[in-house]
Amino acid sequence: MASRPSPSYSLTLRIEYPNSVGMLGRITSLIGEMGGDIGAIDIVTSNNGAMTRDITFSANDVEHGQEIVNAVRSTGLVDVVHVSDRTFLLHLGGKLEITAKNPIKTRDDISMLYTPGVSRIVEKIVENPDDAYNLTIKKNTVAVVTDGSEVLGMGAAGPAAALPVLEAKAILLKEFAGVDAFPLPLDAQGDANFVAAVKAIAPAFGAIHLEDIKAPRCFRLEKQLQDALAIPVFHNDQHGTAIVALAGLMNALKLVRKNPEALKVVINGAEAAGVATAWLLGAWGVKDVIVCDEKGTLGSFRADVDDATLRELCETTNPRKVEGTLETALEGADVLLGFGRRRVLEADAIGTMNNDPIVFAMANPYPEVDPSSIEGVARIIATGKSDFPNQINNMLAFPGVMRGLLDSRASTVNNEMKLAAATAIASIVGPDELNEDYIIPSVFNRRVAGEVAKAVVKAAQASGVSHRIARASL
Amino acid sequence: MASRPSPSYSLTLRIEYPNSVGMLGRITSLIGEMGGDIGAIDIVTSNNGAMTRDITFSANDVEHGQEIVNAVRSTGLVDVVHVSDRTFLLHLGGKLEITAKNPIKTRDDISMLYTPGVSRIVEKIVENPDDAYNLTIKKNTVAVVTDGSEVLGMGAAGPAAALPVLEAKAILLKEFAGVDAFPLPLDAQGDANFVAAVKAIAPAFGAIHLEDIKAPRCFRLEKQLQDALAIPVFHNDQHGTAIVALAGLMNALKLVRKNPEALKVVINGAEAAGVATAWLLGAWGVKDVIVCDEKGTLGSFRADVDDATLRELCETTNPRKVEGTLETALEGADVLLGFGRRRVLEADAIGTMNNDPIVFAMANPYPEVDPSSIEGVARIIATGKSDFPNQINNMLAFPGVMRGLLDSRASTVNNEMKLAAATAIASIVGPDELNEDYIIPSVFNRRVAGEVAKAVVKAAQASGVSHRIARASL
Repeated sequence: MASRPSPSYSLTLRIEYPNSVGMLGRITSLIGEMGGDIGAIDIVTSNNGAMTRDITFSANDVEHGQEIVNAVRSTGLVDVVHVSDRTFLLHLGGKLEITAKNPIKTRDDISMLYTPGVSRIVEKIVENPDDAYNLTIKKNTVAVVTDGSEVLGMGAAGPAAALPVLEAKAILLKEFAGVDAFPLPLDAQGDANFVAAVKAIAPAFGAIHLEDIKAPRCFRLEKQLQDALAIPVFHNDQHGTAIVALAGLMNALKLVRKNPEALKVVINGAEAAGVATAWLLGAWGVKDVIVCDEKGTLGSFRADVDDATLRELCETTNPRKVEGTLETALEGADVLLGFGRRRVLEADAIGTMNNDPIVFAMANPYPEVDPSSIEGVARIIATGKSDFPNQINNMLAFPGVMRGLLDSRASTVNNEMKLAAATAIASIVGPDELNEDYIIPSVFNRRVAGEVAKAVVKAAQASGVSHRIARASL
Repeated sequence: MASRPSPSYSLTLRIEYPNSVGMLGRITSLIGEMGGDIGAIDIVTSNNGAMTRDITFSANDVEHGQEIVNAVRSTGLVDVVHVSDRTFLLHLGGKLEITAKNPIKTRDDISMLYTPGVSRIVEKIVENPDDAYNLTIKKNTVAVVTDGSEVLGMGAAGPAAALPVLEAKAILLKEFAGVDAFPLPLDAQGDANFVAAVKAIAPAFGAIHLEDIKAPRCFRLEKQLQDALAIPVFHNDQHGTAIVALAGLMNALKLVRKNPEALKVVINGAEAAGVATAWLLGAWGVKDVIVCDEKGTLGSFRADVDDATLRELCETTNPRKVEGTLETALEGADVLLGFGRRRVLEADAIGTMNNDPIVFAMANPYPEVDPSSIEGVARIIATGKSDFPNQINNMLAFPGVMRGLLDSRASTVNNEMKLAAATAIASIVGPDELNEDYIIPSVFNRRVAGEVAKAVVKAAQASGVSHRIARASL
């Protein structure tokens, strides 16, 4: 699979040269011929015929970018004054700032925002702890927490290296849902230590957003935390992804005119997203779900599985007790939901599915099966990537879910809320718009987070876990 | 002691009345006669002779404010439409916001700030953990942490009620030193749990600012945390206050021409600030320090003291083994540094001190001895309050100290840095300006934090705890 230039490998090249007609063209042609994708050309200075320009271009990867820079250098036509990597530049000093809503500039400001005024606020919260929601940041602030055990599919990078990812989640929460989110990668080994640390930080937050925690640890930790805390705990790799996958499936089923009750679904990947999706499909009414891990189908026969959550999955899914490989499970199935880590299927396997196969091949960076190889075989294809139609990305779920959790002051996250969120995302694609290449809205559709938030608030109230008569604020 | 109107009890009264000459004057006169201090009068609307105005005034306390409102109401001249308490209004929704330095608006933004670009940042930090300082918020971000055990001298208000105080500290750190500070009141009972929780959160932060932790617990916790962490840990109630008190004392000694070596100092209060000041005075060269708690002088004879830090204080201070009350200790002393909780002394006791008594009566809200009662007795008087000359306020120290700790990437906070900070604060008052009523700069003097930061950076480098060749960034 040939790679293509990506802005994530975007360089800015500062060149200096004696100005003459055609000079710039020769350099930009060279970059283009070598496969660089030029984004912008800016003049820095132009003095006495000496030009300094910044050329920004995307390359396929780090090596490709370096080859292009070397090629420009070796023309001898220009001086390469400086090369900057835009992704690194954007990360310098981190991506978040903490600002005062009202700065302290005068003695009166101190008297009201700090001492002695703040002591009245303290007294009020001591009298009525619920007032923390009105008089502190708690109401609109979530902690984005990880143990660094499964960072972006790169494995156990550790808490320090997970921080840039959490910062990105915090930006997304702010940008799409107005949520103040603070990144807290926790250096806490062992379940008990991690749970104790999250319990310790809880007073400042209205909700806990878990991220990048390895399965099956993530299942235990989320449950223990939710049992211990009065604020909602949401593991995004599980439920964010499950909600969006379900939203896509809801719309796909409208096209193929199938109902959840009669559906046969195969899930590839028994980690965070796969397992959470299996549970959520069950809550939605799907009876026949088979989850596969690297060894094959899960079921009551799998004596090797001893983690409590996965054991429960073995006992409560795969009702036909299909024993075998992912390919075995796919025979006659209506839907494949792939949350794996690599290409594992040939197109033939999709050919063995029931009529109108629905294939969500969401493994990263390479889908479970090459999407182009199953065109015409699968009726509907979705991936996790932005360069194919139907991108299943949990960005569509978590900002709106967090907004809804905060706005309803929910004490927990239940299936009613997750199903409502999925339905809301699916509903953004109108009946007239719905087609095989458009079953899920774009991650930039600004209506999504608001609709999700509204749905979550409504479901929280209907299911009795809301602590507030409220409407979503988006 | 009569109270005076304070902006921390500031109300905005919205009144509606049929406009006629003199009406506004009658209302404002009434407020003034009752002791309210009018700050602003704004027109809201003026329609067909009906006026709506907002009158903002300060009262002495909550009851006084209510009396004034009731009096305005009972004139029958105006309708009181609304009364708002400005301190509460300023706290609604909390005082901090978390913002993205570069928002995610486009697909390219996602590619660079989030996936796939961020995975290169993660890899870089995995390769070289020190790069977390360049590529995440760690470099400029501190955690403001408490257990809520001693909130603003109000006792164990608990972590949730401490949050508004920590938010205020975060604003001050931003406003005076450009530090991004996040408030983390920790629900962690027991020393081991608290230490474990702070260790857990450390990856995101360049320093830990401890606040509002009860003595003697604060001494143990700070030491255990500093031993466990590679980032500096600074308990502001201890060292922030000690640094500013020492700065004031440095300047006071210039006026009375005394040297630290021959000085007799009495400290009232064996809690955070008192104990830290005793240590810091020792490091500065003062040989004769007596600390008093509620039972009297501390010394090797105090068999009732068993906390390890206080025991060490008993053994290493009070070289003349003076046994008795605070008054006993004051006989012949040069300096009283009071960090207590209430008025405990009559003016007579100050009269028994050595010539040119220096009295820092910093108990809150009422100084150890009424400052007006010792004018002419004490040569130099300082308090913790803003309505007397010479306010000793740790606001003068902690923003600059934190700035210096971050800029030097210090691994710890040592006495060299604290002494340098005190010297820097003292030096802001020039030789020509120095007098009995001006020994310490105003909390609004914008030069202070920068000078403190520079001094801390220099001392960190000289004492070998800096991990960076750096200059202070303020």
